[in-house]
Amino acid sequence: MLYFITSNNNKFEEARAILQMEMEQLDIDLPELQDIDAHNVIKAKLNEAMRHHEGEFIVDDVSLVFDALKGELPGPFIKWFLQSLGAEGIYDFVSKLGDTRATAKLIVGYADGKDNIHFFEGAVEGNIVKPAGERFGWDPIFLPKGYNKTYAQMPQDEKNKMSHRHLALTKLKEFLQTK
Amino acid sequence: MLYFITSNNNKFEEARAILQMEMEQLDIDLPELQDIDAHNVIKAKLNEAMRHHEGEFIVDDVSLVFDALKGELPGPFIKWFLQSLGAEGIYDFVSKLGDTRATAKLIVGYADGKDNIHFFEGAVEGNIVKPAGERFGWDPIFLPKGYNKTYAQMPQDEKNKMSHRHLALTKLKEFLQTK
Repeated sequence: MLYFITSNNNKFEEARAILQMEMEQLDIDLPELQDIDAHNVIKAKLNEAMRHHEGEFIVDDVSLVFDALKGELPGPFIKWFLQSLGAEGIYDFVSKLGDTRATAKLIVGYADGKDNIHFFEGAVEGNIVKPAGERFGWDPIFLPKGYNKTYAQMPQDEKNKMSHRHLALTKLKEFLQTK
Repeated sequence: MLYFITSNNNKFEEARAILQMEMEQLDIDLPELQDIDAHNVIKAKLNEAMRHHEGEFIVDDVSLVFDALKGELPGPFIKWFLQSLGAEGIYDFVSKLGDTRATAKLIVGYADGKDNIHFFEGAVEGNIVKPAGERFGWDPIFLPKGYNKTYAQMPQDEKNKMSHRHLALTKLKEFLQTK
């Protein structure tokens, strides 16, 4: 059995829609490792899941990185920046740094049940802008390159076709279909 | 037996000098939880240590927070900012935010061997300045309030008498002496 580890039902349904495979949501609370590299965060979660369960597992982690912070930060720590500063606060912060370019990344890890972990990355370049549109998280301040709408201003199905999440899950799908 | 959990011999010797108690260094590699609150990072480590060993344990964690980032960030993530940007890069970054005030904190957690964890905090206010003096980490860019020398420009014994580390360990010492 293939398990997608998340407590978020929407994430699970979106993943199932893209992957079009039989899979189950596994809502277990795995500690989040403190590491600037999302691959290590994911690897720790998959190893922990494999200690307790049989099967194949998928775990993902979102990173948002700013060109003004060497394209490395805040990385996986973006969730804490969002919690502390809010979306508008992040916009103010990045504006002051004088370079609003940013890249949104989803890293997906897949544990194949035979001790191998495979990673797939979806990345979308863009800019951090003044909040526009209503949606959770940093969607209102992320303007993807080549678009005139923030993530939050796009209808969900339009975003789902081009997002960093979509790109990463599509790569995973191709891998699972050909293995 | 009282164990101080660290891989850093200097930290251990400094703690022993301040605490003046019989204790041993325990160099075990405990995963670092991703949390903006150092108390949770420490609690996770102590709980993990208690699962594998008998005894009393001390774990510490350093946070550096900037007034420009609500006095909450980067917090425990400062180590990754230092790794990515370097001390001078952090100075540039904080300067652009227009407010260089910062607070250095050491949080110490003590597990008493009876399932209780006690926390002690040492905090020193200051400013982030252009690098001055030679020492590891962010010592060259931290100018404590009321001083005209950065941490790195102070002789080690002068710093040891006023640092966030000293303040926190002194509180722990008082607690251990009176318990």
